Amino acid sequence: MSMSKTIEEQVHDLGRQALAASRRLALLAEADKNRILLTMAKELERRIDTILEANAKDVEAAGKSGLTSAMIDRLRLNPERVAAIADGIRQVATLPDPVGEILEGWGRPNGMRIEKKRVPIGVIGIIYESRPNVTSDAAVLCFKASNATILRGGSEAFHSNTAIAAALQEGGASAGLPEHSIQLIPFTDRESVKHMARMDQYLDLIVPRGGKGLIETVVSLARMPVIKHYDGICHTYVDKDADLAMAKEIAVNAKTQKPGVCNALETLLVHQDVAEAFYADGGRALLGAGVELRGGDDVRAALGDVVKPVTDKDWTEEYLDLILAVKTVDSFEEAVEHINTYGSHHSDCIVTNDAATAERFLNEIDSATVFWNVSTRFSDGEEFGFGAEIGISTDKLHARGPMALKELTSYKYLIRGDGQVR
Amino acid sequence: MSMSKTIEEQVHDLGRQALAASRRLALLAEADKNRILLTMAKELERRIDTILEANAKDVEAAGKSGLTSAMIDRLRLNPERVAAIADGIRQVATLPDPVGEILEGWGRPNGMRIEKKRVPIGVIGIIYESRPNVTSDAAVLCFKASNATILRGGSEAFHSNTAIAAALQEGGASAGLPEHSIQLIPFTDRESVKHMARMDQYLDLIVPRGGKGLIETVVSLARMPVIKHYDGICHTYVDKDADLAMAKEIAVNAKTQKPGVCNALETLLVHQDVAEAFYADGGRALLGAGVELRGGDDVRAALGDVVKPVTDKDWTEEYLDLILAVKTVDSFEEAVEHINTYGSHHSDCIVTNDAATAERFLNEIDSATVFWNVSTRFSDGEEFGFGAEIGISTDKLHARGPMALKELTSYKYLIRGDGQVR
Repeated sequence: MSMSKTIEEQVHDLGRQALAASRRLALLAEADKNRILLTMAKELERRIDTILEANAKDVEAAGKSGLTSAMIDRLRLNPERVAAIADGIRQVATLPDPVGEILEGWGRPNGMRIEKKRVPIGVIGIIYESRPNVTSDAAVLCFKASNATILRGGSEAFHSNTAIAAALQEGGASAGLPEHSIQLIPFTDRESVKHMARMDQYLDLIVPRGGKGLIETVVSLARMPVIKHYDGICHTYVDKDADLAMAKEIAVNAKTQKPGVCNALETLLVHQDVAEAFYADGGRALLGAGVELRGGDDVRAALGDVVKPVTDKDWTEEYLDLILAVKTVDSFEEAVEHINTYGSHHSDCIVTNDAATAERFLNEIDSATVFWNVSTRFSDGEEFGFGAEIGISTDKLHARGPMALKELTSYKYLIRGDGQVR
Repeated sequence: MSMSKTIEEQVHDLGRQALAASRRLALLAEADKNRILLTMAKELERRIDTILEANAKDVEAAGKSGLTSAMIDRLRLNPERVAAIADGIRQVATLPDPVGEILEGWGRPNGMRIEKKRVPIGVIGIIYESRPNVTSDAAVLCFKASNATILRGGSEAFHSNTAIAAALQEGGASAGLPEHSIQLIPFTDRESVKHMARMDQYLDLIVPRGGKGLIETVVSLARMPVIKHYDGICHTYVDKDADLAMAKEIAVNAKTQKPGVCNALETLLVHQDVAEAFYADGGRALLGAGVELRGGDDVRAALGDVVKPVTDKDWTEEYLDLILAVKTVDSFEEAVEHINTYGSHHSDCIVTNDAATAERFLNEIDSATVFWNVSTRFSDGEEFGFGAEIGISTDKLHARGPMALKELTSYKYLIRGDGQVR
């Protein structure tokens, strides 16, 4: 690419090249894709020194530019993390190829035969922030479903992303990866996001992976479909017929086992009939596990001033931390109403021994995954048995909940006949 | 609604109301939905005079404002057209309810059981142009899949749309239709489109039904998913191993049986080995059927100056008329390349007796529906056996090709366990 081209022209070149690559990718056999993946993993490990050197440059620059230590930690690679990236590629090689599956087939009275066949989506744009492992994780998952990718990583990880992408591209090429199957936007200018988002003649889908600000920006600009992985404001509702020991275990697990992720518990709802008993045991257990509770007067009366006063803002807050909003509800209906109103339609749980109440909850809660007596932490592609996932979709179209290989495909209809006309 | 509210506030009120209605709709049983539909059909027929009076106002205003006669014809209702709208509602009542279907179910090693269940999308916005029948066709199809709708019809059909929507709402209400399930934007201001398109807190999907200009506007503004029904630039490729009599019949049918629709033939590709023979018979048949052919020098040499010279612009033109672009190709590969480059990925056909060539075509053409020895006119929900359709999607995400009841649903995961934690 000549440097006299504008950023828009350069981004369009990548789009055109990706579209051409996607046609070749669609025809790759499963064995070829797996061989390419294993070669990529090997090449990534072979280049570990180059990758760590590139990463050191990013980390040094990040320190100088005043990034927080949490952000620098997300950015930093070490030999174990590079090995984990390579292992991730090998795991994707073991997953079944979704492409080519016949989803349905039927005949029509006029003798024509219709098949609905799973095919790749085509060209997928991934826009992400500081974690350099996304460069590989997202690209190889899209590749396994025969999609071409255009990657736009965070500027703070530019050298790391470039080194990882080069390993995938060059390692892959040596095993038959079509040219331009995986492309990284080769500059950090923010303008490139705008051009990607408008380039619907080449990009079939954009997946923003990052914070709410990034997703909002992409949603505002994009002309093509966007699959969004918004917040998880997840609830556990302790019903009047709950096994309170189980409710305690589920709440503590969902809140504390990994608080910084989207399927962690953020709001606990407790039916008034069991509130006193639950707070005395489960409430204390949460406090004992180091959780800051925020509740109304009755919760504070039950557990003391250690419980901070809750405000309306708490019901829509994704803490991603050891903080939990707690509310006593008068009824099952109030719990459902609260969750459907304030939740993010991600993952919500009821704890109850009453099957009829549970089935109502499963039916009435409008969320991607609804649990009965199971921790919301199981809202996860691996836990579902899907293998690696690209994220948890909070959208309702195309992909809802864990988005894995099948959700990275489209379909087409094939119709065979012998001269049918209307 | 108070008239002191801004247009934005009024549109948001409709959104809020539709969301509330969608929760009640999600719980309606199939029998209730069908009873409501039949009552709507009856009420529509009962109000035929009111509807025709309203329509006469629209038609009169359209005449004065200088709409073309084709546009006025699309706008005009008569007793037969109103009866057809009511019959359409009754047909939707006979279609199987897609909601509640268990799409998949499986257990996990930890004992939890996962079900993937089909559920409504929620709230769907429909933005459409002059045909008043869309008010009913779109609303009842969305309703059968338990979705709430917000309808924004063309200003030229405002009185007709209002009368039809009132019949659906009031007829439906008498049989238990939840309030605000079907709402029509009650004014013709263009600003309302903008507010709908930005209202992603309430609208899960927007479907623009109309010309390219309308779709482009919605795509540029929308924050929520848009399912697009763009042009059909459909091809038929006559292979060197084609049955030329069949190729003639298919081409004539696909071009002339109903030229004004998206699955009609727009470009004919002919392999050079059979070009002379095909033009002599099939080419003449097309001319005889009143089709204007546009072709290169060789086509004009074969058929004379009656064939107009083709230009590059013709390859991307959706004529929707008795006009056909014709090209002789050197090879199968050139045909595939042409279709994937210039087509709109809607519906394309190969005519051949060679099964291996046909399978390559089915595999390599990147279109929603790919035909072997069948007229592209069969790219249609009814012809597929889906019943009524909301359109033919040219998107690859969520819905591709004919978009019927199943494509008006989403899914959620239900997980049942006995205290599983991570």
